[in-house]
Amino acid sequence: MKQSDHTFMQTDLKLPQNCFLRQAASSDHAGIIAVLTDWWDGRDLTWMIPRLFLIHFHKTSYIVEKNGSLIAFLIGFLSPSKSDEGYIHFCGVHPEYRGMGIGAFLYETFFTLCRQHNRLFVRACTSPVNRGSIKFHLKIGFDILPGDSDMEGIAITNDYNKPGDPKVLFRKNI
Amino acid sequence: MKQSDHTFMQTDLKLPQNCFLRQAASSDHAGIIAVLTDWWDGRDLTWMIPRLFLIHFHKTSYIVEKNGSLIAFLIGFLSPSKSDEGYIHFCGVHPEYRGMGIGAFLYETFFTLCRQHNRLFVRACTSPVNRGSIKFHLKIGFDILPGDSDMEGIAITNDYNKPGDPKVLFRKNI
Repeated sequence: MKQSDHTFMQTDLKLPQNCFLRQAASSDHAGIIAVLTDWWDGRDLTWMIPRLFLIHFHKTSYIVEKNGSLIAFLIGFLSPSKSDEGYIHFCGVHPEYRGMGIGAFLYETFFTLCRQHNRLFVRACTSPVNRGSIKFHLKIGFDILPGDSDMEGIAITNDYNKPGDPKVLFRKNI
Repeated sequence: MKQSDHTFMQTDLKLPQNCFLRQAASSDHAGIIAVLTDWWDGRDLTWMIPRLFLIHFHKTSYIVEKNGSLIAFLIGFLSPSKSDEGYIHFCGVHPEYRGMGIGAFLYETFFTLCRQHNRLFVRACTSPVNRGSIKFHLKIGFDILPGDSDMEGIAITNDYNKPGDPKVLFRKNI
């Protein structure tokens, strides 16, 4: 991506009025866990965000708030073992604030951080059942990586985290 | 800890015959997941080791093998947000190879790595039900941090990763 494109994306994306971005803190963990199941339509994914992610990766994670209430979050880190990669572990937006570009804003904020640390691409993954997430990643320019099979035309990697756990793997050059 | 103590510990600990230490690789994930439930006495903790831990932290994680078979592993990382800390996420030893100092050897190997990166202490945590783990951490010099209540005389922190999830928190100066 050319620098001009990057600059364009940065200035083009804005948060809704009275929504503010800040770096995450360790203490944000409880607030995220408290909303997670509601935001994911009843799916309990709390096991995916043990407190260590906020304690140790909060400097590369972000919170969007409005009047002190959690509106969105992104948990990411600069891969220590893969020096050209950033990884987005989790991102969520309050259901009433979707479709306003907040997720894209958070991703772009993380991409900027990654570029500042000489990362060339960002990876993420999601479950095949999460069609909204797949659509979102494709929309903001991620590619779906080849998998070992496909589900309704989408490449998936089976047994990703454990047996019976298919994932869609995303990668984007930044 | 004085340098002399550190040197002493390094030379004092040895792996059993024909057991070899190596840095972990991303590809070790499946092998770890395959043994985890057996090694943990039927407790299914596979959700605690998503593949990202091996992909992104394999350079600070270790494997012990004997004739190509997995004997033990340690998954750790240098905290990116807390520049004086190392964190041990998970460590397991094959049940038939316990009591031989392999866990202590892995921890000491990680401590050495942490010292090389100017880390002053290492943290870990465990569930209060895992008495073997609590005993192990105390034996190799970890302190149990104050919690918000206690369970049979051991300080625990309630709701650590989510509601109803108590943890014992350990810290060791290295």
